[in-house]
Amino acid sequence: MLLDTLGKNAKSAAAVLACAGTELKNKALLAAADALMSRSGDILEANLRDVNHGIQIGLPKNLIDRLTLDRKRIAAMAEGVRQIAALPDPVGGVDKGFTRPNGLRISVVRVPIGVVGVIYEARPNVTVDAAALCLKAGNAVILRGGSDASASSICLTQIMREALEKAGLEKNCVQYVDDPSRETAAAMMKLKYLDVLIPRGGSGLIRTVKENASVPVIETGTGNCHIYVDKRADIKKALDILINAKTQRTSVCNAAESLLVHRDIAPVFLPQAADALISAGVEIFACPESLAILGRYKASPATEEDYGKEYLSLKISVKIVGGTEEAIEHINKYGTHHSDAIVTESYTESEKFLAAVDSAAVYVNASTRFTDGFEFGFGGEIGISTQKLHARGPMGPDALTTYKYVIRGDGQIRS
Amino acid sequence: MLLDTLGKNAKSAAAVLACAGTELKNKALLAAADALMSRSGDILEANLRDVNHGIQIGLPKNLIDRLTLDRKRIAAMAEGVRQIAALPDPVGGVDKGFTRPNGLRISVVRVPIGVVGVIYEARPNVTVDAAALCLKAGNAVILRGGSDASASSICLTQIMREALEKAGLEKNCVQYVDDPSRETAAAMMKLKYLDVLIPRGGSGLIRTVKENASVPVIETGTGNCHIYVDKRADIKKALDILINAKTQRTSVCNAAESLLVHRDIAPVFLPQAADALISAGVEIFACPESLAILGRYKASPATEEDYGKEYLSLKISVKIVGGTEEAIEHINKYGTHHSDAIVTESYTESEKFLAAVDSAAVYVNASTRFTDGFEFGFGGEIGISTQKLHARGPMGPDALTTYKYVIRGDGQIRS
Repeated sequence: MLLDTLGKNAKSAAAVLACAGTELKNKALLAAADALMSRSGDILEANLRDVNHGIQIGLPKNLIDRLTLDRKRIAAMAEGVRQIAALPDPVGGVDKGFTRPNGLRISVVRVPIGVVGVIYEARPNVTVDAAALCLKAGNAVILRGGSDASASSICLTQIMREALEKAGLEKNCVQYVDDPSRETAAAMMKLKYLDVLIPRGGSGLIRTVKENASVPVIETGTGNCHIYVDKRADIKKALDILINAKTQRTSVCNAAESLLVHRDIAPVFLPQAADALISAGVEIFACPESLAILGRYKASPATEEDYGKEYLSLKISVKIVGGTEEAIEHINKYGTHHSDAIVTESYTESEKFLAAVDSAAVYVNASTRFTDGFEFGFGGEIGISTQKLHARGPMGPDALTTYKYVIRGDGQIRS
Repeated sequence: MLLDTLGKNAKSAAAVLACAGTELKNKALLAAADALMSRSGDILEANLRDVNHGIQIGLPKNLIDRLTLDRKRIAAMAEGVRQIAALPDPVGGVDKGFTRPNGLRISVVRVPIGVVGVIYEARPNVTVDAAALCLKAGNAVILRGGSDASASSICLTQIMREALEKAGLEKNCVQYVDDPSRETAAAMMKLKYLDVLIPRGGSGLIRTVKENASVPVIETGTGNCHIYVDKRADIKKALDILINAKTQRTSVCNAAESLLVHRDIAPVFLPQAADALISAGVEIFACPESLAILGRYKASPATEEDYGKEYLSLKISVKIVGGTEEAIEHINKYGTHHSDAIVTESYTESEKFLAAVDSAAVYVNASTRFTDGFEFGFGGEIGISTQKLHARGPMGPDALTTYKYVIRGDGQIRS
């Protein structure tokens, strides 16, 4: 179908959905969760076509893995939708209200954004996640996933659409762009019906969207996250947090990519850290001062480039700093404003770090791996924003709403 | 100076300003207000150069008027800055906080956006307004005003910078792009140091920025505002509101451009409305049904184009509708999502209108002319957003902040 038609459909579906009650939206979500389970067979069949095609064209193993669904993964998607249904409805919330001297009563009321576009890669679960979160917040969504997962995504979209109809909502609240061409992607970035476009995927995709879109975009994703171990750190906590943030899952944006260590604690901490990292299979790229301390441990010299890298693998850069100020400066210079942590028992240093690190999520004594919609209690996320406009950090249903001013008067005119 | 240098300067000034306390920022604002007064002579001299140049190149009278400063206007600018100083500091406010089951304590804390770019036309007062609002919210700002006001804007920027230094803040919190070329404007739209770019001016400027920027943009401005007179309207209120919204000031975005009237009240209301409008010098473009009622009054037929027009002058389109639903549909189709009002004594119709009209400000029984940072009590505005991302409606200091997640733990790791 022509993109323009999808846009028009979405606009008109959004207008109806914006006024739909919470019950109706939740009914559609629960119907979708049920349908995902009862139609697992159809989903697996469609997914098998994608997987076979992927193998045929020689997709790397990790992409095939990301693409592959099984009954357990489908059940997890359904469970995710149920959790989203169980969340409070962000629409209709009143952020604040006040009365002006002239008697005008003004409230700031949360409303859906309208039409949301999502461009993502070949991950079928994003189809369900994004559709469910948008629906919860009262938005119509136009999805465009990677072509390698198109059979799966089209099947999942169809199931969501049927659930919407079953619940008495307009099926065009969820639409899929069934055209893998670059021209269509480019046109979607300029589609006037979109109130916002969210790219979800690797840095290449995000850059392309950012550079070419004329509709508002929320940049998501890349995370060069830091763990700063202050001189007053509890060493046990520091080691646990470092190993967790670096190794618990490496391919994700909230994993740590860089370790900063206070000069005074480095001689004690670094050898233990290196032991733990190397046992976990992590390759270390260290500054000259760290290398001198590490001596007998295997570590390579860090280049300037290492400090700015999102490895997404079992690698870490290590640098010794003179204190919290230098750590903050380093993080704000090389980081991606995603998630950064200080490990310290010092109140003053913790407050300094929290105030000055310019990131979406700033931690004291906890792993950066918590920056996540589920972990924050949002029931899911449509992405993790690393820009500062509109939403920052994990974007749950709240971030998919905007507000309007509702003004009640009794004949006021301006003089 | 090279744009890139301005960007770097702003970034480093912003980092310091973000942690500056409220007192320091207010001290700088008050110093700026004092300096505007004490240096009125310099400002008037610079402004005279702009005005003389404007006359020489044949600028239209209304643009010359917008450009011209006098002691009264300078005093008003200084007073505006004082009002901004008196506002609460939006930075550091906590939107919400919660504790997760694992003991992580998460707060959502308001922080400055960082570096704000403002592109505007030849209006010297915007230089002071924008700089003061950005400073209040802890942002560094890069200003680029219309070249016809450049002597004035440079002089005003200089005064603000001196005030910053006097208060002990970094003068690069406020910088001016002293290069009127289109190339520089284009480069500013892609300047990586900007966290947001706000175009403030006519629809041409806004469209250019929206289409060419790769940095996040907040669209401001155009307003095709409606007054809908329901069948249960109080006719006196309806007439007052209509005349105020249409004629109190015509060149502004919150002025009414279109009148919708319920069919049942049209025979009574329209002749009175036409009387009042025509006495005020307003030209009427009406639908066939309205024309039939208006008969003896001077009115032209409305074209499809009239309904979508932001006249910004003494003109209005008029259309009869069958009820609130049809009014809502018309407004959402032809409007610009700025400000729209219903005049009614019916509770049900008022709630219907408030819920379904998709605009930044939705009114019952009041003039759309109130959509304004001063009128809403924000002490000023950097623009009126008509997009849905980040901020909607009049943007005061609050809208110039974002948030970050501050997470306090005691060693939590993710399992």
